[in-house]
Amino acid sequence: MKAESPHITIEEFDAICAAEGGMVEHYGFVTDHIGYGEARVRMPIDHAHIRAGGTVSGPAMMALGDFAVYALVMGMIGPSPLAVTTSLNVNFLRRPAPVDILAEATILKLGKRLAVGSVNIHSLGDDDPVAHLTATYSIPPPEQRG
Amino acid sequence: MKAESPHITIEEFDAICAAEGGMVEHYGFVTDHIGYGEARVRMPIDHAHIRAGGTVSGPAMMALGDFAVYALVMGMIGPSPLAVTTSLNVNFLRRPAPVDILAEATILKLGKRLAVGSVNIHSLGDDDPVAHLTATYSIPPPEQRG
Amino acid sequence: MKAESPHITIEEFDAICAAEGGMVEHYGFVTDHIGYGEARVRMPIDHAHIRAGGTVSGPAMMALGDFAVYALVMGMIGPSPLAVTTSLNVNFLRRPAPVDILAEATILKLGKRLAVGSVNIHSLGDDDPVAHLTATYSIPPPEQRG
Amino acid sequence: MKAESPHITIEEFDAICAAEGGMVEHYGFVTDHIGYGEARVRMPIDHAHIRAGGTVSGPAMMALGDFAVYALVMGMIGPSPLAVTTSLNVNFLRRPAPVDILAEATILKLGKRLAVGSVNIHSLGDDDPVAHLTATYSIPPPEQRG
Repeated sequence: MKAESPHITIEEFDAICAAEGGMVEHYGFVTDHIGYGEARVRMPIDHAHIRAGGTVSGPAMMALGDFAVYALVMGMIGPSPLAVTTSLNVNFLRRPAPVDILAEATILKLGKRLAVGSVNIHSLGDDDPVAHLTATYSIPPPEQRG
Repeated sequence: MKAESPHITIEEFDAICAAEGGMVEHYGFVTDHIGYGEARVRMPIDHAHIRAGGTVSGPAMMALGDFAVYALVMGMIGPSPLAVTTSLNVNFLRRPAPVDILAEATILKLGKRLAVGSVNIHSLGDDDPVAHLTATYSIPPPEQRG
Repeated sequence: MKAESPHITIEEFDAICAAEGGMVEHYGFVTDHIGYGEARVRMPIDHAHIRAGGTVSGPAMMALGDFAVYALVMGMIGPSPLAVTTSLNVNFLRRPAPVDILAEATILKLGKRLAVGSVNIHSLGDDDPVAHLTATYSIPPPEQRG
Repeated sequence: MKAESPHITIEEFDAICAAEGGMVEHYGFVTDHIGYGEARVRMPIDHAHIRAGGTVSGPAMMALGDFAVYALVMGMIGPSPLAVTTSLNVNFLRRPAPVDILAEATILKLGKRLAVGSVNIHSLGDDDPVAHLTATYSIPPPEQRG
């Protein structure tokens, strides 16, 4: 990966997400880091919506991973609220402990039309992944990104 | 598929989901039908949580599809709240219209350890799928199901 | 699916595959049917390459399913040897019997950039699927198709 | 990952594969390394079967990745020819150069019933992945492994 600066700041990304409503408000996602080719997003465990039997639900982890790739893509191409997921694959590996969950996304491919990211989700303080997912985003043409 | 009766009623399934909290309360899912080898679950569009820019979010569709396979599996093996998703793959096909969304799940395989379901998600009144997903559930041994 | 005629004949498709070498020669695939939005490809069990312990290997089924979607896509957009798979997901469901294997592909989405197909693979004379897969193809722009 | 010794040697693994026929003979796979929780398998580009238009075909990469996870699993549980793939997901990222292809597999989860591996496939001398895949294997009970 080239040592390039990210093309969006966390503040800009948060502003886009706030304007859209949805994921951040719904799940309480916190974007900790956006680099060029990597992003890290956290799901605070004390957010009311994510607890189900004391653990994090599968759909909440899928939403987190999908969101981390959204941040990842914008870190590479700049603000692009119209980027949309075209496919996603997830393997659930372990039952997460009732602590904050972190999604670490890294880029696998940035093409002209598609971006593919890989995400490891793990519990705070434990590097063993609880889920692994890949997500493909369709990238809008440059004139539709702004 | 054998013409067998479903091994759970909608009332029993709803009671299990209510006890767990989570998906139903979170997204407002309504289970319309559980047969032996098929299930249909609806996401009412007027539920506050699912709207983001006037459409249904990808994570909400993943949650719906996952939930439909949960209903499908219980229709075949009976009440088993401990059945858990091991993997899920989704393709997003079209942007759904702002109407109710239906997930129609059919069984691909029911084994001793794993069940695999296929789901077409479409908008009410339009058979063209907006998303297609497959989900694999790990089935608890019979003595842990009840 | 609209009742439209396929945009390629089996003869044209076979000629493209023969020019490419690869799959057909390697696995002995036979294209039985190409319609608009559907295709059926067969893997004759007596082809030397596919037997491993008397059954069809997983990779051979993946190759067959991928190939069926290639035929499916050309049935909708016409000859396009440059169409390439961007992602594929497969669930293996049952061990196939040592008879011919059929892949029945149907279109889930035909967009400007991407086509997504769903494939059920089953043994000749038995409708229960031995594998289910989805594959996404990247479609070349019209000027690069011919 | 614990610093444990692998539970199979390359010689033992090669002997199992030779007895099965199939993949190794078919594609010419060479197993370079099996550790505990990691494996590396190579596809020599000069093997007659893998060339199609001067590049490596998608199905050949899927077969390679699947095979790398087979080696990975046996490195953790010992000789188990009956371990079978239950699902596989692949993203094709770049067109590989006409050189040897390496699949580097790492374990994501080793459970009692299922093992999940992640594979990056890249060209010799170039770390950028040409494909990323995950594969899940069903693990036979200990008494059926030997």
